Amino acid sequence: MKLINSVISALCLVSALSLSAIANDQLVSKQVYQGGAFTFFNGQQIDQFEVGWQSYGELNEEADNAILITHFFSGSSHVAGRYEDGGALGYWDAIVGPGKAIDTDKYFVISIDTLVNQEPHNPYVTTTGPASINPNTGQAYALEFPVVTIRDFVNVQKEVLESLGIERLHAVIGASMGSLQALEWAVAYPDKVDRMVSVIGMAQTDPWTLLSLQQWAEPILNDPNWDQGNYYSQRNDDETTSVGPQAGLRQSIMQISLQAMHPRAINAMFSDFNTLDTAALEDPLAVHPQVEWLRQRASERARYADANHILYLIRANQLFIAGMQDNLDQGLARLQASALFMPAKNDLLLHPSMARHAHESLLRLGKESQYVEIEGDWGHLDGLVSIATQADRLKTFLAEKRQRSE
Amino acid sequence: MKLINSVISALCLVSALSLSAIANDQLVSKQVYQGGAFTFFNGQQIDQFEVGWQSYGELNEEADNAILITHFFSGSSHVAGRYEDGGALGYWDAIVGPGKAIDTDKYFVISIDTLVNQEPHNPYVTTTGPASINPNTGQAYALEFPVVTIRDFVNVQKEVLESLGIERLHAVIGASMGSLQALEWAVAYPDKVDRMVSVIGMAQTDPWTLLSLQQWAEPILNDPNWDQGNYYSQRNDDETTSVGPQAGLRQSIMQISLQAMHPRAINAMFSDFNTLDTAALEDPLAVHPQVEWLRQRASERARYADANHILYLIRANQLFIAGMQDNLDQGLARLQASALFMPAKNDLLLHPSMARHAHESLLRLGKESQYVEIEGDWGHLDGLVSIATQADRLKTFLAEKRQRSE
Repeated sequence: MKLINSVISALCLVSALSLSAIANDQLVSKQVYQGGAFTFFNGQQIDQFEVGWQSYGELNEEADNAILITHFFSGSSHVAGRYEDGGALGYWDAIVGPGKAIDTDKYFVISIDTLVNQEPHNPYVTTTGPASINPNTGQAYALEFPVVTIRDFVNVQKEVLESLGIERLHAVIGASMGSLQALEWAVAYPDKVDRMVSVIGMAQTDPWTLLSLQQWAEPILNDPNWDQGNYYSQRNDDETTSVGPQAGLRQSIMQISLQAMHPRAINAMFSDFNTLDTAALEDPLAVHPQVEWLRQRASERARYADANHILYLIRANQLFIAGMQDNLDQGLARLQASALFMPAKNDLLLHPSMARHAHESLLRLGKESQYVEIEGDWGHLDGLVSIATQADRLKTFLAEKRQRSE
Repeated sequence: MKLINSVISALCLVSALSLSAIANDQLVSKQVYQGGAFTFFNGQQIDQFEVGWQSYGELNEEADNAILITHFFSGSSHVAGRYEDGGALGYWDAIVGPGKAIDTDKYFVISIDTLVNQEPHNPYVTTTGPASINPNTGQAYALEFPVVTIRDFVNVQKEVLESLGIERLHAVIGASMGSLQALEWAVAYPDKVDRMVSVIGMAQTDPWTLLSLQQWAEPILNDPNWDQGNYYSQRNDDETTSVGPQAGLRQSIMQISLQAMHPRAINAMFSDFNTLDTAALEDPLAVHPQVEWLRQRASERARYADANHILYLIRANQLFIAGMQDNLDQGLARLQASALFMPAKNDLLLHPSMARHAHESLLRLGKESQYVEIEGDWGHLDGLVSIATQADRLKTFLAEKRQRSE
């Protein structure tokens, strides 16, 4: 049970136990970027925004050693290390740090909380989205907040990087929704990206993925407390507790958690499973203890989450096609970076065939691309928990010299 | 779109168009069996019950040519042919009929609506469950109805068969939840079953499957109109329309539909998919047309369904272990029939590894067992729509002479 708890913690960045920092851990702190007016991909605008970020290592004088790590759906910029007041280790601590695959002795590694981050109520997350106060009304935006796309995540990141004097990335690397951002970076701003790593990713949402993602939205949309997104007046005094459609939110997170995993890992975890559970056999209202476990974990993960933010994240993923135009090849043709795709072999959420399709499309278009599958029993989550198995590959890829076309 | 509509129709036994019978179709009619007191596996009792059944071919004088076909979660006893007043063809019409794999010139084929059938409001289904009137109170049972297991389905079927003079089955064959019943028949009543065919099945629910199935229950449990199962007072005058937690019911059926399919089939169906849908890009309340399509299909399928019945069906599957005791081998060791497992190669709901495990366990226990995978692009649904690819195998298996141990 320890492994799964730490996996779930990594996913939600909430540790059940607020562990004190251990002597050897890298310490990291959160920064905040304050932005002014921002125009979204769909043409709509907001007057200001803010996002959190954190970094590791030093930016060199030429500002050419920066690696951007873009985060996944339920994640944040907490990639590695631990905050001074404790909490969980960052989700890719195994590969980001001094001497590690993404070597912070060599690279300046930065990660930025996305807009509409899943956890606006997490004290370690700074984001702007439907739960934020619209300065023009003094009320939460709710669904007045513009629909957000992966391109918008990228454009916010670009603004933050430019504020730090970074005009070009040694690499952009991301897992899952982070991989969408990484690829979008490389095709939207080809002259700013030298290397792109897509972990457990895809280049375009297909109808199957659209409909699968929608299963995460329906529980929220069907919850009467969602109230067409206008539940913020229900806000209570304890600002760390989210409000609104809690049942729908919990159900949504139950599904996200389960779909990110694989039968092998779940079944190994519950090797003491009693199929013919007495309580479940006698009483239609009773459930197997494993159901209670999943509900409980989802409730914990819902603590800092906002339902509208989840809806917006789902939408951003549903609308994704690299380059953000009708035709995928047209987008991919813009890429100049060398690409590395690392899907998880047993991924049930984003099947490896999706990454393979992106990789093969790039090769067909005459681009540099590599492909390797991550082995493991965790399914989609192997992109997080089994990433260390690809540490050498990653290190080598990042060290490869590039012949720039310009 | 035609194929998917017919697949969805087959699944729910509701045809969008009420087609008239075509000259060559087998005509079939529904019978009803009235039972008295029934004691469930968990020891609880009801005073009476009724279930529908239909049959094909003639029972011979020795009453030894009977084949029982046990139905899947969303199905009924409508296996083949068409009702005189129209409706859809039975789901396995491709393999059940005169001269077909399950040859009704040779065998007496019978199928029986299960207890707690998903569609108590379907005029072609007769079932007993939470939506039925408890004769002792004059009210619907709701959650007072005993928890039902796969063994209870089998025991009801046994009673119906005995009423027709059938003491022994040439074969019992079922897909998905039907395969659970087929296997349970063979281990609960080993001296009554000569051949057992498990299509897209398993021998025991594992923790992963338990939790996946629970995702179908949560939408109903979270719907305030579910009201702890006591929504029958909301019943309206139109008895063909189901009542209660309609939003939860629709969402549950959306998920069931999707999980039974495979990306290849869904993506082929929507080859005109526009990822960057304009409405979805502009308005958080808009959805891609494919989402609307899935919602619409689920609403149609919800028409005759009952939410509590779905909860009971989920529970029956969650509690399944062949033989209904703690240890699977102990159950499987009882089997005397020859077994044939036919999982679908691309099944994402019940992975072929589950059927393979059952098959290999039987071989280890010295039993006769065969294993073949159904190829196709439909995932779990290949057990229905691609079954004809295994017609010859099935025909041969049914014709094999058996040396009975007794």
